[in-house]
Amino acid sequence: MSGIVLGDNQYGKAETHVVRVTRDAAAHEIKDLNVSVALAGDFADAHLTGDNSKVVPTDTQKDTVFAFAADGIGEIEDFATRLARHFVDEFETVLRARVSIEEFSWSRLAGHAFERTGPATRLTTVTCTSEKSSVVSGITGLVLLKTTDSEFHGYIKDRYTTLPETRDRIMATSLTARWLYDSGDVDWGASFADASRLLKETFAEHYSLSLQQTLYAMGSAVLEACGEIDEIRLSMPNKHHFTVDLKPFGLENPQEVFYAADRPYGLIEGTAKRQGVPDRPEAW
Amino acid sequence: MSGIVLGDNQYGKAETHVVRVTRDAAAHEIKDLNVSVALAGDFADAHLTGDNSKVVPTDTQKDTVFAFAADGIGEIEDFATRLARHFVDEFETVLRARVSIEEFSWSRLAGHAFERTGPATRLTTVTCTSEKSSVVSGITGLVLLKTTDSEFHGYIKDRYTTLPETRDRIMATSLTARWLYDSGDVDWGASFADASRLLKETFAEHYSLSLQQTLYAMGSAVLEACGEIDEIRLSMPNKHHFTVDLKPFGLENPQEVFYAADRPYGLIEGTAKRQGVPDRPEAW
Amino acid sequence: MSGIVLGDNQYGKAETHVVRVTRDAAAHEIKDLNVSVALAGDFADAHLTGDNSKVVPTDTQKDTVFAFAADGIGEIEDFATRLARHFVDEFETVLRARVSIEEFSWSRLAGHAFERTGPATRLTTVTCTSEKSSVVSGITGLVLLKTTDSEFHGYIKDRYTTLPETRDRIMATSLTARWLYDSGDVDWGASFADASRLLKETFAEHYSLSLQQTLYAMGSAVLEACGEIDEIRLSMPNKHHFTVDLKPFGLENPQEVFYAADRPYGLIEGTAKRQGVPDRPEAW
Amino acid sequence: MSGIVLGDNQYGKAETHVVRVTRDAAAHEIKDLNVSVALAGDFADAHLTGDNSKVVPTDTQKDTVFAFAADGIGEIEDFATRLARHFVDEFETVLRARVSIEEFSWSRLAGHAFERTGPATRLTTVTCTSEKSSVVSGITGLVLLKTTDSEFHGYIKDRYTTLPETRDRIMATSLTARWLYDSGDVDWGASFADASRLLKETFAEHYSLSLQQTLYAMGSAVLEACGEIDEIRLSMPNKHHFTVDLKPFGLENPQEVFYAADRPYGLIEGTAKRQGVPDRPEAW
Repeated sequence: MSGIVLGDNQYGKAETHVVRVTRDAAAHEIKDLNVSVALAGDFADAHLTGDNSKVVPTDTQKDTVFAFAADGIGEIEDFATRLARHFVDEFETVLRARVSIEEFSWSRLAGHAFERTGPATRLTTVTCTSEKSSVVSGITGLVLLKTTDSEFHGYIKDRYTTLPETRDRIMATSLTARWLYDSGDVDWGASFADASRLLKETFAEHYSLSLQQTLYAMGSAVLEACGEIDEIRLSMPNKHHFTVDLKPFGLENPQEVFYAADRPYGLIEGTAKRQGVPDRPEAW
Repeated sequence: MSGIVLGDNQYGKAETHVVRVTRDAAAHEIKDLNVSVALAGDFADAHLTGDNSKVVPTDTQKDTVFAFAADGIGEIEDFATRLARHFVDEFETVLRARVSIEEFSWSRLAGHAFERTGPATRLTTVTCTSEKSSVVSGITGLVLLKTTDSEFHGYIKDRYTTLPETRDRIMATSLTARWLYDSGDVDWGASFADASRLLKETFAEHYSLSLQQTLYAMGSAVLEACGEIDEIRLSMPNKHHFTVDLKPFGLENPQEVFYAADRPYGLIEGTAKRQGVPDRPEAW
Repeated sequence: MSGIVLGDNQYGKAETHVVRVTRDAAAHEIKDLNVSVALAGDFADAHLTGDNSKVVPTDTQKDTVFAFAADGIGEIEDFATRLARHFVDEFETVLRARVSIEEFSWSRLAGHAFERTGPATRLTTVTCTSEKSSVVSGITGLVLLKTTDSEFHGYIKDRYTTLPETRDRIMATSLTARWLYDSGDVDWGASFADASRLLKETFAEHYSLSLQQTLYAMGSAVLEACGEIDEIRLSMPNKHHFTVDLKPFGLENPQEVFYAADRPYGLIEGTAKRQGVPDRPEAW
Repeated sequence: MSGIVLGDNQYGKAETHVVRVTRDAAAHEIKDLNVSVALAGDFADAHLTGDNSKVVPTDTQKDTVFAFAADGIGEIEDFATRLARHFVDEFETVLRARVSIEEFSWSRLAGHAFERTGPATRLTTVTCTSEKSSVVSGITGLVLLKTTDSEFHGYIKDRYTTLPETRDRIMATSLTARWLYDSGDVDWGASFADASRLLKETFAEHYSLSLQQTLYAMGSAVLEACGEIDEIRLSMPNKHHFTVDLKPFGLENPQEVFYAADRPYGLIEGTAKRQGVPDRPEAW
């Protein structure tokens, strides 16, 4: 195969769903995680000749997740770091380990019983090489809606534009936000709580002239309050709620009855970051 | 087509997703509903000859949902009843109308802004004929887990049985419960709150020897406390959490580390009902 | 709990995903099945007191599926019958066993390699008691579309009707059809092939005045040609394709550009059956 | 918000589902596309002040998709290019337009009637700036399985390794492959057919010592035969099929009965590319 070469590659075990119960207190605690591992490194032989002598099997990665869980989880950023660091330190052929975790939330019903809450899920991705590591955390599936304080007008009109301008509309989204930490020395739980709260509060309180403006306000609010965060990326589908035309039925519709559409949807993606802080594309 | 006849049939518009905002208070209210209509009646001509003269188009059904929403929603049982009654009363050819609604829940963030909560969803199905009506309400997607107080032993063993008996396991499920009301004169919101609370409380507090026992205890608790409910049907997938064998790694696992499996799963379905109350299969 | 009694109940292992390879020929064969078992019978004790002495664990049911697969699958109707009969014959407490199977289809790429085809999936549900058994087979996920030969007009208009009549529209659906056999002595593979072919052919060739008419024509065609089938139930979502209004852009749209909507959708359900054949509701 | 700046951002209308019928022949043709548009450019004002004067509304983007569909679709690469080029050429503020299309496949049943085939879906992403453009095409959801000719052994063993080596296993995946074209002057349909065929053939014929090796063989085969393709990226989940232990039931299992697991799964990602061809990260 002259002239053809192996490019970027990684492999790992995805979506190991582990539940860890802590039983030493009167009331048990649970952590419910979906863990994905991806390793990059010296794996050309496996690709070129099928020689697996440098390969850590994905099955072993799964076993490692379970074995490490025996020591307790703690914050997902710490658990992911322990795992990623293990793969890089233990295996010469692993040059980069990336561990991504989804944490599902539960609230206690009574002593040992829990109810799943949601739909929002906490996220982290920890990336380690032998020299450095990075932590990106976030939230996904945070569904937000405001019934007013959202306008959209003043945009470009061309021959294909039929959208009427509006001074009052529903704004709704299912937010995914991911943010990059400046170091590994953070109170992860507190930082997640702060960032999540600020995203919600800003969505609620911001008077919106465009979804882009709201997105940037939300990102900026997190950066302003959370000095440990260098950059935040937000993905906000614009989940359209169309005002139903009730005139054919002799009825007014003063922004009260809406049709919630599935597709198509707007998809607004943006980033807020600190000026002068170098980009770290490998972290994401 | 001699000897071939038309059997049971119904049709309607499914999954009209309507959001109703009430704007008259300082803080807006929202109702977020997915409404499905199914009509049965004198529709043989449409099937046999394509003569639609007795057919209410599904598009009209959708329009009707939106138009009725303009008058406000109230409790979903009332909204479904108004719709179902309308189709039966208005159209001679409609002999039975069934309106099913999913209601998604939101919590207020601030004045006019909301966050979607879940994953549990409130349900109702109202079925009307010219003479009577029935209301079945319920909840779906209620994900519950308890870390102890669940045993499973004493079952039949045959040549294919490999499952070890256990005195302590995780019990987890994603509950769907639907209950039949004895009349249409009920405080729907209060009844839903009571039934939902009792299902959760009983799951939490019941010491379980089998998932069937827990299911029946949950159903019975609702019937005991809610005199307006005649029958309750529960569907409880047994979402298996397997204790991971950590011995190969030199580790104990005193019921702390679990693998949460997707499939296969147990599926336990059962009914609790009041003795002597006649069955109403048409309601479900 | 005086006055509260146990009603209908069943339990079993759902969605055991088994792949069976037959290796004795030069070219291997595969069967890819998702098997669900549901047992009903003398299980009141498990519900009322947690006494499991009459319970066949769902784990054993799963084991049985795998063990029976070792003997080969054959047609899914035969495999389901063997399983259902086993549970009824082997266990006194099992009064009714229902085994439902989805079979995923694969086409051969070369000797031992296969490509998954679809999206349509073959179905069967076999229900056995000690005295009798029934077989319902079918197909689901059969997505069909015709670009013309479909009209819809002549329907009831009321104050909520805005739908314009049409003499030419796209008709599209994702068909689920299930049919009841008159006995257990059928060439299952040939019958499935015939019924599936007739459903497609009739959809393709029928000039439609309503989706109901097409549905009934499809069902009737199966009954006319397949003497072994007593009844067929069809569920046909009307997957709306709306003609896009291109006039604002100075363009005509002679039924060429369509917006394919997700929700809401019409849902048309109907049955064709042989006159005089008794209903067997327990089979479905 | 001193010190906080806007980073990468883009926005657009996602998932416009358009069906285009060509009616001029005796037998109609259909194209069934899901089109997503993403624009990047001079949109800081919308983020910073809510000034939308440089914004092309996503609603207009959707309208444009429909309007352009009126002229016919052709190959999806051409349609995406026409759309992307339009946005860049027409609007000064749009510096980069990316149009991604999924094309669903249908086979003809008869004159004007079609059956959806799948599950594999054809993909393209066209990215245009004022100066250049790139085309990445691909396929997703191509589910492949081979029952033999797959080994896995010789890997690293550590204290967490429990996986036994194997000389014969099922290999199964749901392939996503995306490839980068060297120019915009390609017979897209022929190239897609070639690449898809080669991926399948190589999967079928390659004797595998690791999934990585199969992946790279598949990628290389495409590059060797398709001179117009510079680079190909493959993502191959290892959909595990575990040999069921039937010994407890007194049965052998000579690689015949498998349990098809959902999660966790291996995820193998890799790239084959031509030596010396510069990377074009902006294309993906």
